[in-house]
Amino acid sequence: MNKVFADLPVTVFEAMSQAARDNNAINLGQGFPDDPGPEDIRRAAADATVNGYNQYPSMMGIPELRQAIAAHYGRWHKLALDPMTEVMVTSGGTEALTASILAVVEPGDEVVVFQPVYDSYLPIIRQAGGIPRLLRLEPPGWRLTEEMLASVFNHKTKAVLFNNPLNPAAVVYPREDLELLARFCQQFDTIAICDEVWEHVIFDGREHIPLITIPGMRDRTIKVGSAGKIFSLTGWKVGFVCAAPPLLRVAAKVHQFLTFTTAPNLQAAVAYGLGKSDDYFYDMRKELARSRDRLTKGLESIGFPVLKSQGTYFLTVDLSPLGLNETDVEFCKRIVTDYKVAAIPVSAFYEQDAVTSVVRFCFSKKDETLDTALERLSDAV
Amino acid sequence: MNKVFADLPVTVFEAMSQAARDNNAINLGQGFPDDPGPEDIRRAAADATVNGYNQYPSMMGIPELRQAIAAHYGRWHKLALDPMTEVMVTSGGTEALTASILAVVEPGDEVVVFQPVYDSYLPIIRQAGGIPRLLRLEPPGWRLTEEMLASVFNHKTKAVLFNNPLNPAAVVYPREDLELLARFCQQFDTIAICDEVWEHVIFDGREHIPLITIPGMRDRTIKVGSAGKIFSLTGWKVGFVCAAPPLLRVAAKVHQFLTFTTAPNLQAAVAYGLGKSDDYFYDMRKELARSRDRLTKGLESIGFPVLKSQGTYFLTVDLSPLGLNETDVEFCKRIVTDYKVAAIPVSAFYEQDAVTSVVRFCFSKKDETLDTALERLSDAV
Ligand SMILES: CSCCC(=O)C(=O)O
Ligand SMILES: CSCCC(=O)C(=O)O
Repeated sequence: MNKVFADLPVTVFEAMSQAARDNNAINLGQGFPDDPGPEDIRRAAADATVNGYNQYPSMMGIPELRQAIAAHYGRWHKLALDPMTEVMVTSGGTEALTASILAVVEPGDEVVVFQPVYDSYLPIIRQAGGIPRLLRLEPPGWRLTEEMLASVFNHKTKAVLFNNPLNPAAVVYPREDLELLARFCQQFDTIAICDEVWEHVIFDGREHIPLITIPGMRDRTIKVGSAGKIFSLTGWKVGFVCAAPPLLRVAAKVHQFLTFTTAPNLQAAVAYGLGKSDDYFYDMRKELARSRDRLTKGLESIGFPVLKSQGTYFLTVDLSPLGLNETDVEFCKRIVTDYKVAAIPVSAFYEQDAVTSVVRFCFSKKDETLDTALERLSDAV
Repeated sequence: MNKVFADLPVTVFEAMSQAARDNNAINLGQGFPDDPGPEDIRRAAADATVNGYNQYPSMMGIPELRQAIAAHYGRWHKLALDPMTEVMVTSGGTEALTASILAVVEPGDEVVVFQPVYDSYLPIIRQAGGIPRLLRLEPPGWRLTEEMLASVFNHKTKAVLFNNPLNPAAVVYPREDLELLARFCQQFDTIAICDEVWEHVIFDGREHIPLITIPGMRDRTIKVGSAGKIFSLTGWKVGFVCAAPPLLRVAAKVHQFLTFTTAPNLQAAVAYGLGKSDDYFYDMRKELARSRDRLTKGLESIGFPVLKSQGTYFLTVDLSPLGLNETDVEFCKRIVTDYKVAAIPVSAFYEQDAVTSVVRFCFSKKDETLDTALERLSDAV
């Protein structure tokens, strides 16, 4: 069997969700809301399922959705995308990332990867024969530095994977960091694969700046997005890739042999959703920020040092000042069995030199869910 | 960019569907029905979308569907599968095949592939670093022979890809051929990856025999199926992989980084569908056989030599006795532009020594569609 995959553990999200079920625990691990998602979008999907088209759509996605994606980014980021040559629909953000990596990376290519790293990146880079060059981001700021980038970028750097907003650290990167990264990409002729699935889940009036909009990056950036994250319908697995035609063309060739295409009834509903007024997105952010604040205050009041979340469904807690004498993994095991609350140890996002004192909690949950979790955790530290 | 993918053509199915749209032609190329698919299954999906779960399901598929798949194969083939360790849901048959190939094939492994070959197999084998060993099946019988298998199987043969019923040849292989293949797999310790997506689309009382049920193959076969094909809902992209735990475990590790999981609302509807009575499946076959016969008789009456279809949505026509002095590709180009009917040249399924005289037509269409196509083609030969 293929050694790249044979000995991998089950993804930490699935493993912790399983532990949550086994322990009958509240699942603040894997990132998904505990509400059913926007009713009007689900009704649009139901309508398309009963009255619309259910056979093979175009491999690149239904034209309505490709147009809606282009229009959406035009409106939000003044990014002009040609829906027919620069936008592709995929079966979720994971497929979008995998198609992008396999399109770009060839045996021997170096690929810069920031830790904490989402767990699909490294196995797929290795499957492509690429050589990951790992960088280490650190709490509390998780910022990029010139020194860090200079230590790995070189003329063999084919690609960099960049996740912004960053899961699990819940950072939304400022323009300064993006410009720094862009400078290195241009200097070393590097393609940026940008996992921006959390782009709409940002708080406190923050702005998400797509790397592709930074000067010099338009033709060397592959932008990955996810309707599941934008609309809190994580199971739908409708994602997208936006890139200049020479990049998108190759990603499409990979996509045609990974999944070929994506359910047209769900695509139609996502196209409808992307047309919603700006207020919809601002309200969603406000609502999620309220949940973030509820969990933040609750955790702080029982003694957890919370690193405030700027975006994503997540906040993190730094255990180090607590003197608990246990790692993040030990802590997560303890709270899921003894307190019936599942969380994610951030060290699972590191392959080397792990930060082992930070734990991630998902707050995209009903108030009752968060309150019950807080009650249960009240004497955990 | 990755050379395995960069210079590939767009898949022939997409290209011919595009040609059909460009020429305002009837599309008898890509395999999909022109009806919307079973209404009750679509209603089940709509119901699950509005009232059911739309967040991340288990990575392996929702338990109801995994149980339904196991029960279905138990009922139809006396195949006992453990739904929790031997069944996985994927985002379509293409993803199922790609996950299976990437799970098994490592650099330097030889992989036996029969031509005509479905166009996703070779690029993915090459991406895995595998070395395809191509065999050539031929009309009119497209049968396996001992000589053929003996010419390629050897101790480096890691896997064989086998499509049965065979698209585009429309053959349902008899037990004899399966036993021959099984003998070679056992002799050379080879894993069989079986693309059986057309398993239910078989005619004239024929039986589909899954290779995994041939003695000696239970632990060395990966069986791939597709709900899109079983229920004529080709756009849904719900597929499945069945295999012994040591094989499935690795395929699952690949799957978790190709798509991670598949829309739970569509999965729920497929679980419902698989529970339908045997009559449903027999009626579906009868209805499709009726369409096959309609197109067969019509094509014969205007002078096309039809190779009768045993299964799949397709029949093939052998141009060679017609003395047309054109290849299958030229013929397909001519009929889509001059007669406004799209078909698929079977040579597109060969990488070497192509059979260039056979053309595939899809008959899973309304009577009117077939009749209009026949009218248009009436003086094509
Ligand atoms: C694909 S499951 C993981 C979902 C997610 O983004 C997370 O929990 O970090
Ligand atoms: C993935 S599009 C091809 C559909 C099909 O099976 C065919 O037309 O052969």
